[in-house]
Amino acid sequence: MRRRIYLDHAATRFPKPEIVLQTMYEHAHSQEAAVGRGAYQASQQASQILDSLRREIRLWIDAATSDEISLQSGGTEAINVGLLGLLRPGDHVVTTAAEHNSVLRPLKHLVDQQVIRWTVVPVGDDAVVDPDAVLAATNETTRLIAIVHAVNVNGAVQPVKTIGQSLAQRYAEASKPILFCDAAQSFGHLPLSVREFGIDVLASPGHKGGQGPLGTGFLYLRQSLHDDIQPTRFGGTGGQSESLHPPNEYPAKLEPGNRNVPAAAGWLAGLQHAWQGQPSPQQAVEQHAAILGQLAQQLYARLSEQPNLRVIGRPATPLLPVASIAVDGLPAAEAAMILDGEFGIEVRSGLHCAALVHEAIGSPIDGTLRISCGEETSASDLDALLDALAELS
Amino acid sequence: MRRRIYLDHAATRFPKPEIVLQTMYEHAHSQEAAVGRGAYQASQQASQILDSLRREIRLWIDAATSDEISLQSGGTEAINVGLLGLLRPGDHVVTTAAEHNSVLRPLKHLVDQQVIRWTVVPVGDDAVVDPDAVLAATNETTRLIAIVHAVNVNGAVQPVKTIGQSLAQRYAEASKPILFCDAAQSFGHLPLSVREFGIDVLASPGHKGGQGPLGTGFLYLRQSLHDDIQPTRFGGTGGQSESLHPPNEYPAKLEPGNRNVPAAAGWLAGLQHAWQGQPSPQQAVEQHAAILGQLAQQLYARLSEQPNLRVIGRPATPLLPVASIAVDGLPAAEAAMILDGEFGIEVRSGLHCAALVHEAIGSPIDGTLRISCGEETSASDLDALLDALAELS
Repeated sequence: MRRRIYLDHAATRFPKPEIVLQTMYEHAHSQEAAVGRGAYQASQQASQILDSLRREIRLWIDAATSDEISLQSGGTEAINVGLLGLLRPGDHVVTTAAEHNSVLRPLKHLVDQQVIRWTVVPVGDDAVVDPDAVLAATNETTRLIAIVHAVNVNGAVQPVKTIGQSLAQRYAEASKPILFCDAAQSFGHLPLSVREFGIDVLASPGHKGGQGPLGTGFLYLRQSLHDDIQPTRFGGTGGQSESLHPPNEYPAKLEPGNRNVPAAAGWLAGLQHAWQGQPSPQQAVEQHAAILGQLAQQLYARLSEQPNLRVIGRPATPLLPVASIAVDGLPAAEAAMILDGEFGIEVRSGLHCAALVHEAIGSPIDGTLRISCGEETSASDLDALLDALAELS
Repeated sequence: MRRRIYLDHAATRFPKPEIVLQTMYEHAHSQEAAVGRGAYQASQQASQILDSLRREIRLWIDAATSDEISLQSGGTEAINVGLLGLLRPGDHVVTTAAEHNSVLRPLKHLVDQQVIRWTVVPVGDDAVVDPDAVLAATNETTRLIAIVHAVNVNGAVQPVKTIGQSLAQRYAEASKPILFCDAAQSFGHLPLSVREFGIDVLASPGHKGGQGPLGTGFLYLRQSLHDDIQPTRFGGTGGQSESLHPPNEYPAKLEPGNRNVPAAAGWLAGLQHAWQGQPSPQQAVEQHAAILGQLAQQLYARLSEQPNLRVIGRPATPLLPVASIAVDGLPAAEAAMILDGEFGIEVRSGLHCAALVHEAIGSPIDGTLRISCGEETSASDLDALLDALAELS
C-alpha cells in the first residue's frame, strides 16, 4: 500500500486515536445497551457514560457545571439545535462573513422566514473580523452574536475573547446579547474557556480536535439560558414518557431518541487519553496549541517561499496549520486530484462550506486548495507536500 | 462473568453482528475520510459507501430508486426531518394512540404551535388500530397519516398495508394524504414494501432490525415529495457551497454536515450479511419474520401460562417477540431490577416512550415490564426468563 499523507484534518481527524476506536468497538461488542433510568445495570451504565462524557467536556471548555453540556450527533446538529432553539421572531443577529455554512444557512433560513434580521460583518483579507465592527453592528434588538472561533478555510482565529469581554463591559447581564461560538476547528486545539471568554453558547463536533469518532458533538449552554431554549426536534427521552411534551429540563429536552453510547464511550476515552500525564485538559490544550502553532508557522513559511502558488488569506500570526492556496494555472480540484493520485497527498479543494469568506480573502472563483495538518503531521509530510506542489505547474 | 440474557432488543439489538463492528472499526482505522466530491480518492470512496448504503436500503424496503433514501443519524431524527419538513400551516394529520413519542411529540408540537390540527385514532386493547377508523378520521384537509408499523410496547402489527391500499382506492394520486410509516420495530424484521403497502414516507433507525450500529437511520421519501419537503436543519452539504441556501435536491437537502461514514460502512456490511445466501433481502426478511413469529408465539404462550403475572395487550396473532407484562404485587421497575440483579435477565420497565397506548391496553400506572427478544434468543433464554418470573412474587 502506498504511503498516505492525510492533510484534511479540518474535515475530520485521521487516524482517530486507537483507544477511541478500540473503546467504541469494545463497548458495542460486550456492553452495549440503550440508555435507561431504573432499568437494568448495563442500561444505567450507558447513562453513566453519557454523564461522564459531559463532565469531561466541561473540563475542556471550563464550563461551570456538566449539566450545561448536551450531547449531539455532530457539530452541525449542535449549531442548529442551538440557533433554532434560541432565536425568536423579531430578534436581530450579528454574525460574520467568515462563518461556516452550518451557521450561515440556519440563520439565512430564519431571515428568509422573516423570523430574524441579521447583520453580516465583513472580514479582512485574512478572514479576521474587527471586534469593534462586531460591537458596532449590535443594536437594542440584537439578541445573539454568532462567531466562529477558528475559520476552517485558513485557520484564522477570531477575537472571540475580546468580543465576549467587551460585551460584558458594555451590557448589563440581563440585556447582553447571547455570544454564540462555533468551535468546530478550535475545540481541543486552542485554549478555550467559556467563562473567561464570556461565551454563552458553544457548539462543536467531537471528531476533530476532540479526537472522538464521527457521530459525536456537543452544545454548551450557559445555565441562564436553559429555560429559554426550545427543543426543535422531539422524541422519546426515557423519563416523563406519559407526556406528549418534551421534558422542561436541559439537557434532556435537547436529547430526544436513542443515544449513541458506543460513540460516547469512545469519545470519552479519547478526551481522557488526550490529557494523560498532564494536570488538566487546559494544560494539555496549551501543549496541543503550541505544537499546532509551530506547524502553522512552518506551513505558512514554506508555502510563502513556493514560487508557483499564491497563499490565500494568510493570517498575520498563523496559529492553526490550515492554509488555503491557489496553484498557478491549475484549478483547485485538478490540483487536489494530482496531489492524491500521483503523490498520495490528501487535501480538499473548493469553497469548504464557507459561502461568504472567499471574496474578502481573494480566492479564485473555483475556490482554494486547502491543506490542513494534524498534530502528527511530520516534517517529512511537509517536505513531501512542498516537493509535490513544486512539480504541479 | 455471569451469563447475560439480553431481552431488550426493541431498544437496540445486542450484540450487533461482528461484521458490523469490525467493518466500522476497520473503516475508521484505515480508510476514514470526510465525504467530498472531487477531492481525493478516500473522500470519494466515502461518498460511494453512502451511495451503496442507499442502494442496499432500497432493496430492503422495495423503493423505486435509491435516490429516495436519505441517511439520518437515527430513527428519531428521520421522523422529525420527515414530519417537520412536510407539514404546513392548515394541514390536518391523522395518527393513532399506539405511536411512539418520536411521532407523537413532533406532531403535538405542531398542534401546540397551531400549525396543524390532528386526530388521534384510538386503538383496541391489543394496541391495534382499525383501518376503517383511520380512513374515517380523514377529511379534505388531511395531508398526512402517521402510523407505526409495529408497536414497541407489545409488538402489535398495524394494518399499514390495508390503509395504504384503501387510500390508493379512495383518492386520486394528487389528492391522496401522505402515508407516513414509522418502521422502527419492523425494518428488517417484517416484510415491508413501500410500493406494495402504498407508503409515501418511511423512517427507521438502523440499529434494531437493520442490524446496524447506533447512530444510523434513514428516511424514505417517495419521489413525488422530493420538491415538497423542506429542510429543517441546515449546514454544509459539500456541493453548492457558495449559496446561503441548502441545495434543492433531495436527499442532499436533508443531509447537512459531516456524514458518519464508518457507521454507514458498518451498517452496509450488516445489511449485506443479513441476506447472504438468499436471493434477495425480501426473502431473508421472510425467514427472519418466520423465526421471530415462532418466538413470539412461544413467548406469549408461556407468559399466558404463568399464574403470577398478567400479559398486557396480547396481540391476537403475535408476530414479533415483544411482550408487556405486569407481575402481581411488584412494580415494573422493581421487577426489572430483580430480574437483572438476581438472574442476569435484562428487560425494560415503564411506559417505553409511548404516551397514549397504555390506557387502551390496560397497563398499570407505572407502566409495564417489557420483554423483547431477538432472533438469537434461545429456548433456554426463555426457560430462564420464565423460571425467574415464577420466583418473582
